[in-house]
Amino acid sequence: MAPTVEGRDATLFPEFPRGPLDTYRARASFSWKELALFTEGEDVLRFKKTIFSALEIDPLFARSPGAHLSLEKYRELNFLRCKRIFEYDFLSAGDVFESPLKVSTLIQCLGMYDWSLAAKYLLHTLIFGSVVVSAGSERHFAYIPKIFSMEIFGCFALTELSHGSNTKAIRTTAHYNPATEIRDPKTLFPMPGVMVGDIGKKLGQNGLDNGFAVFHKVRVPRQSLLNRMGDVTPEGTYVSPFKDARQRFGASLGSLSWGRVTIMGMAVTNLKLALSIAVRFSATRRQFGPTEDEEIPVLEYQTQQWRLLPYLAAAYALDHFSKSLFVDLVELQRGLAAGDRSARQAELGREIHALASAGKPLASWTAQQGIQECREACGGHGYLAVNRLGVLRDDNDPNCTYEGDNNVLLQQTSNYLLGLLACRVQDGACFRSPLKSVDFLDSYPGILDQRFEVSSVADCLDSAVALAAYKWLVCYLLRETHEKLNQEKRSGSDDFEARNNCQVFHGRPLALAFMELTVLQRFHEHVHQPCVPPSLRAVLGRLSALYALWSLNCHAALLYRGGYFSGEQAGRVLESAILTLCSQLKDDAVALVDVIAPPDFILDSPIGRADGELYKNLWGAVLQDSKVLERASWWPEFSVNKPVTGSLKSKL
Amino acid sequence: MAPTVEGRDATLFPEFPRGPLDTYRARASFSWKELALFTEGEDVLRFKKTIFSALEIDPLFARSPGAHLSLEKYRELNFLRCKRIFEYDFLSAGDVFESPLKVSTLIQCLGMYDWSLAAKYLLHTLIFGSVVVSAGSERHFAYIPKIFSMEIFGCFALTELSHGSNTKAIRTTAHYNPATEIRDPKTLFPMPGVMVGDIGKKLGQNGLDNGFAVFHKVRVPRQSLLNRMGDVTPEGTYVSPFKDARQRFGASLGSLSWGRVTIMGMAVTNLKLALSIAVRFSATRRQFGPTEDEEIPVLEYQTQQWRLLPYLAAAYALDHFSKSLFVDLVELQRGLAAGDRSARQAELGREIHALASAGKPLASWTAQQGIQECREACGGHGYLAVNRLGVLRDDNDPNCTYEGDNNVLLQQTSNYLLGLLACRVQDGACFRSPLKSVDFLDSYPGILDQRFEVSSVADCLDSAVALAAYKWLVCYLLRETHEKLNQEKRSGSDDFEARNNCQVFHGRPLALAFMELTVLQRFHEHVHQPCVPPSLRAVLGRLSALYALWSLNCHAALLYRGGYFSGEQAGRVLESAILTLCSQLKDDAVALVDVIAPPDFILDSPIGRADGELYKNLWGAVLQDSKVLERASWWPEFSVNKPVTGSLKSKL
Repeated sequence: MAPTVEGRDATLFPEFPRGPLDTYRARASFSWKELALFTEGEDVLRFKKTIFSALEIDPLFARSPGAHLSLEKYRELNFLRCKRIFEYDFLSAGDVFESPLKVSTLIQCLGMYDWSLAAKYLLHTLIFGSVVVSAGSERHFAYIPKIFSMEIFGCFALTELSHGSNTKAIRTTAHYNPATEIRDPKTLFPMPGVMVGDIGKKLGQNGLDNGFAVFHKVRVPRQSLLNRMGDVTPEGTYVSPFKDARQRFGASLGSLSWGRVTIMGMAVTNLKLALSIAVRFSATRRQFGPTEDEEIPVLEYQTQQWRLLPYLAAAYALDHFSKSLFVDLVELQRGLAAGDRSARQAELGREIHALASAGKPLASWTAQQGIQECREACGGHGYLAVNRLGVLRDDNDPNCTYEGDNNVLLQQTSNYLLGLLACRVQDGACFRSPLKSVDFLDSYPGILDQRFEVSSVADCLDSAVALAAYKWLVCYLLRETHEKLNQEKRSGSDDFEARNNCQVFHGRPLALAFMELTVLQRFHEHVHQPCVPPSLRAVLGRLSALYALWSLNCHAALLYRGGYFSGEQAGRVLESAILTLCSQLKDDAVALVDVIAPPDFILDSPIGRADGELYKNLWGAVLQDSKVLERASWWPEFSVNKPVTGSLKSKL
Repeated sequence: MAPTVEGRDATLFPEFPRGPLDTYRARASFSWKELALFTEGEDVLRFKKTIFSALEIDPLFARSPGAHLSLEKYRELNFLRCKRIFEYDFLSAGDVFESPLKVSTLIQCLGMYDWSLAAKYLLHTLIFGSVVVSAGSERHFAYIPKIFSMEIFGCFALTELSHGSNTKAIRTTAHYNPATEIRDPKTLFPMPGVMVGDIGKKLGQNGLDNGFAVFHKVRVPRQSLLNRMGDVTPEGTYVSPFKDARQRFGASLGSLSWGRVTIMGMAVTNLKLALSIAVRFSATRRQFGPTEDEEIPVLEYQTQQWRLLPYLAAAYALDHFSKSLFVDLVELQRGLAAGDRSARQAELGREIHALASAGKPLASWTAQQGIQECREACGGHGYLAVNRLGVLRDDNDPNCTYEGDNNVLLQQTSNYLLGLLACRVQDGACFRSPLKSVDFLDSYPGILDQRFEVSSVADCLDSAVALAAYKWLVCYLLRETHEKLNQEKRSGSDDFEARNNCQVFHGRPLALAFMELTVLQRFHEHVHQPCVPPSLRAVLGRLSALYALWSLNCHAALLYRGGYFSGEQAGRVLESAILTLCSQLKDDAVALVDVIAPPDFILDSPIGRADGELYKNLWGAVLQDSKVLERASWWPEFSVNKPVTGSLKSKL
């Protein structure tokens, strides 16, 4: 049985202040509290509340009006905040390994506050701390308490100036030689042979100090090597528990997926924040109307609905997917920790790698485009820094790049599918995977004979219609890509060239379509479970159908080209269904963002506040800057009206 | 005869330093100098060179390494720079009205340096200064010299807190009453009854100080009213040379187009800058390769070509369009100035309004998406602030919003086309317009019977193929939109509702497809003129075809749905042709950006410098920040490792 709202601690859910959003809240088809409980569960809701409340009452986390912090002050503040997070002890060292869901919730909560803080905490705890635990051995465990008190602070060095994606070609080498570390722990001056510096301002996440390190014949003690996967004996011999290099490489694939799945969660979080702002703005901003005397909320316009609501549906579907893939990854990790070397364990690793490698691009691009749409949908108000859409866009941007450029990563997924098809063609192997994401392909190529049979909009309003179309689409793209690859090879291309020439219109859309199908399949099953409270079924079904049809519509050309669609009616039905769902969801939109929006202090956007007092809040925020009504300090330059003669130096 | 490079002043074109870009420069199929001369003409090239050289040697315009300027310092600097631009006298007051092309060139050159400067200069000169001239009368002309010395500085107030797009519903009213201005010209303190303040930080263009002004019963002298279009007599009677309000509104449509056409040019300029950076980066950045020993420039990858080269083609096509529409607008303005009240003049006004209203969305969105693609295509390097892609994205962003939200503006264009169709249906009127952009519609609906007949990639490599497809597409969307509108009205919607419900999948794509066709038609004709130097024909033809097919491909679903395309071959040919053109253009890409890139000082991006010394330039830029190798000033916080106890206040 799903939990119900009655009898819950009244403090679990805020009561929103009355105001301009009341009208939409009253029109919602469901209780937002019930949906929050169904989506998050009571434990997570309480954990989030604990974190948010702690930040809100702590002066160290006070929002700085006007955001005029210098880079250096911002970084200092971020460092102090990170340290304070450890003092709050939201997570114990044990939680990191035993309650992974708590870890990802904490990261997302910190990110909703500020991604620089979340990233600093994440890199130190998970990338540095957990690698010391998982790749180190007994002699390194003494560092753990010091890491969690931030007495030792870690940094993460992966790329070289000339190497990003191609990590295998990295030129830094380590040679065995007796004895030290990078900066002196007391003075923070660099050790001999090490040059460290700051790479300067980035487009976002500037509270995080990214730097560079140059090593010139630096000696590091042998004992500093994290030696679980490979070690050097005092005599200088390399030893490893793995029999071959390929197996050792495979064993680290699991850790790659952690990063990608975490980024999916980060991207979805950004999308949720941006939508909370844009939907509340659209429900309170009025412009034009049927008569000259009456202006209507811009959310009433079909165009505005179509710009925002599909992204709202995407946020719900991708949120569910990123959480469920996280659970799968935990299962994989437990198997690894328990020494499971079964074929299923290996297959699970490959499947999760394929899903994470396309899931990260899909989530980060959807967030990138969604935030941009939110920015534009809020017009000039969205362009004011105080309303936070710019920061969200800037902070989300690296999600498209790190852990692998999105376009490059998608190849991992298309290669996975092509590999399965090759096994089927050569050995007659079945399409089967532990998480069942490829099982439908067992009916390939039979699925290719199916056709779109729906002729009315009403029949299209369930996500099952889009799922069937997606299965056909993935089979079609798989066949097309397979044939294109063979054709490239027949015409003399080597493997490197052949694969490069099969990406743009083949491997890339194949990976994306497969990913969208997987996200949809899981969300469809999730919202059609028997445990879904009856009052939530309609709205969740609509979200699922809207995300499905809106995504599918981007592939309409292929559906026609391959013959799945024929005639004008198919395309028209699809478009009408999308608009119908938008119109059905517009009265639920405010309640849907009430579920995903953090408290006002965390959301930190005057036009997105829960009271909906758009102009009052914006006006209040603008006036909070103490200098707002002052003349500029350089006003005499203007008033005296002398010619500009001084050099830049004397002016600054 | 087109001008040739021989015998030109050698100082007109720089010689690029030898370096890693040499290989691509040597492979180019044409001389970049010849293309620069053909595209810009010698006068414009010289004018640009004068401006760029002046800025480069003036210390006031020195680039500040690290970009750590405070908001206030940045604004002061921007103010001083704007003043200095007037002192340079690049443009005289007369030029503003007599040499409009010089004005737009100057704005774009200043924008390439910094959009805050360009915007400040533009708003003061063109929005304030030229309105005083064009809407004022003799009694205001004394202000002109003071405006051009910046003794009087103008501000532009259009929107209210609650009114943006819907300017007609604005609530500020002016009542006639005898007697002053907003700030005291000597002290810059606000006048009684006026509250002025700053709206705070924006996502970009922060050198520009946007503010707000509140007027509470403020008295403004009667003589301050710009009275050419309407005046108040000393007795308080309103008089106007126009007979009716509608005609007066129509007379100001021309000034609306100036803003939109100018924004097109600004967006195209941003796209050119971003591409200059990303293409040079892609030609020098190496990653992976056919063997483990050899890494190849990322520009050699088909995916990278497909990500960037269509935007490069778009930049050329949109640049030509925005210039040619500017020339049309000058013609319109001359007619207005000469008192031309002919039917042709009115029609020209409407046509330009329709083209500017869709041209601004097309150009600003293409730039927005293109800059984002460039940012991602440069990976982590693109995320470094020093490389400028972030600033370009932020500064370009308002182009999607001001002078009307893009989605809202597109309705002006679809309404124009629907209006012409209604005249044809009701009165049998011909489709004819002064600039001929709608003349092809005279063959509507006959065009709808045409089909795509091309079956080989080779036949597709000329933009004529895409033009024919676009004509069909616009006819198809026009018919669909017309029918949808009628259907909405039949089912009881009033005009307001019916139009709102016909935008998403009808009016909006209709306006965009019509606009793309118009841009393509002009570019196609431009590159096929007899005066095009023979050595430039191939590359220009490829740019035209690539932009055409790449844009068209986004509409492939409609081409199939409406029956213009049938069978799998049509879609495949389109895709292959796009990739073929990318591959044909990749060796020309560096030379193509050499034509559009400003000097290094102006471009201001280490990874985009003309010498192609990617890592050396980046390293040099990072080290220019004097603090780069220092410990953070707050290092004792870290080293002492005390718990964080002070409040935020004491830390700041």
